[in-house]
Amino acid sequence: MDYAKYSLATYRLYDDKADFDKKALGIAVGLTVGSWTELPEAARAQMQQHLGQVVSVDVHEGEASQRYADITIAYPDVNFSRDIPALLVTAFGKLSMDGKIKLIDLQPSADFLSAFPGPKFGLHGVRDLLGVHNRPLVMSIFKSVIGHDLAGLREQFLQQALGGVDLIKDDEILFENPLTPLEARVEACMDAAREAEQTTGQKLLYFTNLTGSTFQLKANAKRAIAAGANGLLFNVLAYGFDALAELASDPDINVPIAAHPSLAGAIYPSQYHGMSAALLLGKLMRIAGADLSLFPSPYGSVVMPKAENLAVKEALLTPSLPQAAAFPVPSAGIHPGLVPLILQDFGPDVVVNAGGGVHGHPLGAAAGGRAFRQAVDAVKQGVSLEEHGKQHEELRIAIERWGVRTS
Amino acid sequence: MDYAKYSLATYRLYDDKADFDKKALGIAVGLTVGSWTELPEAARAQMQQHLGQVVSVDVHEGEASQRYADITIAYPDVNFSRDIPALLVTAFGKLSMDGKIKLIDLQPSADFLSAFPGPKFGLHGVRDLLGVHNRPLVMSIFKSVIGHDLAGLREQFLQQALGGVDLIKDDEILFENPLTPLEARVEACMDAAREAEQTTGQKLLYFTNLTGSTFQLKANAKRAIAAGANGLLFNVLAYGFDALAELASDPDINVPIAAHPSLAGAIYPSQYHGMSAALLLGKLMRIAGADLSLFPSPYGSVVMPKAENLAVKEALLTPSLPQAAAFPVPSAGIHPGLVPLILQDFGPDVVVNAGGGVHGHPLGAAAGGRAFRQAVDAVKQGVSLEEHGKQHEELRIAIERWGVRTS
Ligand SMILES: [Mg+2]
Ligand SMILES: [Mg+2]
Repeated sequence: MDYAKYSLATYRLYDDKADFDKKALGIAVGLTVGSWTELPEAARAQMQQHLGQVVSVDVHEGEASQRYADITIAYPDVNFSRDIPALLVTAFGKLSMDGKIKLIDLQPSADFLSAFPGPKFGLHGVRDLLGVHNRPLVMSIFKSVIGHDLAGLREQFLQQALGGVDLIKDDEILFENPLTPLEARVEACMDAAREAEQTTGQKLLYFTNLTGSTFQLKANAKRAIAAGANGLLFNVLAYGFDALAELASDPDINVPIAAHPSLAGAIYPSQYHGMSAALLLGKLMRIAGADLSLFPSPYGSVVMPKAENLAVKEALLTPSLPQAAAFPVPSAGIHPGLVPLILQDFGPDVVVNAGGGVHGHPLGAAAGGRAFRQAVDAVKQGVSLEEHGKQHEELRIAIERWGVRTS
Repeated sequence: MDYAKYSLATYRLYDDKADFDKKALGIAVGLTVGSWTELPEAARAQMQQHLGQVVSVDVHEGEASQRYADITIAYPDVNFSRDIPALLVTAFGKLSMDGKIKLIDLQPSADFLSAFPGPKFGLHGVRDLLGVHNRPLVMSIFKSVIGHDLAGLREQFLQQALGGVDLIKDDEILFENPLTPLEARVEACMDAAREAEQTTGQKLLYFTNLTGSTFQLKANAKRAIAAGANGLLFNVLAYGFDALAELASDPDINVPIAAHPSLAGAIYPSQYHGMSAALLLGKLMRIAGADLSLFPSPYGSVVMPKAENLAVKEALLTPSLPQAAAFPVPSAGIHPGLVPLILQDFGPDVVVNAGGGVHGHPLGAAAGGRAFRQAVDAVKQGVSLEEHGKQHEELRIAIERWGVRTS
């Protein structure tokens, strides 16, 4: 059968006894035309194009509570509109509540995908904006933002920028507030960026947190951009993938968008429920238009296993999607001593993103940023961090503080 | 301590070894001011109002993987804006990814809650619209909608309406499509409603599915209403709670909104991750403005345990929230023989919602609707279904078909 006009969904379904073939058929029929066997012949001819199809049922026998099947169902594109809510509601709306079932993957049809321009910049566009093509990027996060005034925030920004990081992002919990309101914050931070550039000679993107009510998001984004913002951070899952898709496809929102994984832990970690991290934080973020996607690294306190991290990365980078590749940004627990491992795991197209690993540097945040850049240089030059540290004080001190981890 | 200016979040955190008091403190500090002990005295005075507080830590020792603590943290209202994304991102954005942790409850401050008008009609307003104050309502769902044309949909609607149901809802997987586009569908169905009213003498609300791109939702809602829709169905979780809140608070969207639980199974069922059903499908739906909230009943194939169902109901009805009470709509697996049990579990303020239990009636959908109304009458009169069925053929036949379940 030819599935060109279908979008495919793959589920992992746990059940100790189920007839998984029957279950798959029930999904294919129940979530599309509703009933089939009882339809008269004439009605079937008309309904055939709307009927879901069982693509595959792959049963894994196992001990109690570990028997499962991977089931792939093809949903006719004609059944749903070209937006992610429609696709998700079709493939996993009601079904998400039907037992131990996790949505592992979606393979939208070429026609569905063609409705999504995807990342406006993507990995290569972000590199172009920065003029950096030959090394991983370094991002830093404010140490703390709540309760700080503009001067305090500006000073934090300046110190990070002086360290030579490429990207600085707001904390995702910084909302509209009287101390650091959106436009004033953008102006203060971009002013600090210009000040730092005189020392570093380096461009920098600032991802300011886009928040507020749904129907004000576009206006808020445009206000931030008018004030000078050259990037936006967005808590995608708090608003839905469609909000991201609409923001990313708006020609006036002409800055890269970094997707924050806020709330994702409510969805991806369970073995039995939710959606895979690769789908949630990889493929769907990219289709919807995230230029960068943050996700919990496997290096800190264990949260997302490395295999899942690499699946997210693959979804963000694979050439098999028509949308531009998006930057993977493994986050949390990152220090300069991890840089060789990160580059080994992720390759050169990765953003090394640190908070504590910048601000916790014994010589301060600017030194922290420099230590990261030095670590990146070391790997690029094929030199060990220890060796490179002999000539680079910030890196040496960072290694003394955090060590080097190679696996 | 007085938590009047704080919004509280309660988590269940599983960990075999953790020092839960330390963990709670880490959350209270980490998700607000970022650091505390290292702050100079002067900074602390300024930061105090932004600092999260540990309200309680309730440890339950247990065997391997069953040791947990219920931890309640108070987040200063001053830290976040008055929208649900901000509250959720603050309380569970990053934290959702931090181990085995489930968000059990949120208790937003009175000030936070005051920003939410809540359901425009609520349970009592929906009753007023229908003129039905003395019995549970009966809702019916289309049998199948995809692939049907306007005439087919109208006929299904008419048969359901003739059965005397109070509410009819679209299938949540019916999106904008050429066979039954929004306005034409509303016109056809409302025309059928008027036709049925000549027989039943009864008002009826039709909840048409509100779909499409996020920033078109208001316009689509208003198009539907202009075409005659007197209710809207909305897949809330596909768009986020704020979209619902914005729709519900728009004075021009002057019809009740039924919240569909699509995708909720990705979030509530896990013991270790996600959010409780009572919060997700109860409290937050009500605060955001759902007049009715659908959720999986405990009567069908087991999906949501009865205790969770009752917690959802409690969240929708409790007088402790300033927002109007919303109708609980336990759904799936409902037949007339379950009506006494539903009313025993939920009390009189419930919507009895059926699909197969209406359409599967041996005498057709109109008879199916009548059987439900007869079952409701029987309970109201204190008569057994079997007894009432002696005088009411549709109920008798429904009981023969599905039986009566009393526990
Ligand atoms: Mg953060
Ligand atoms: Mg349905």
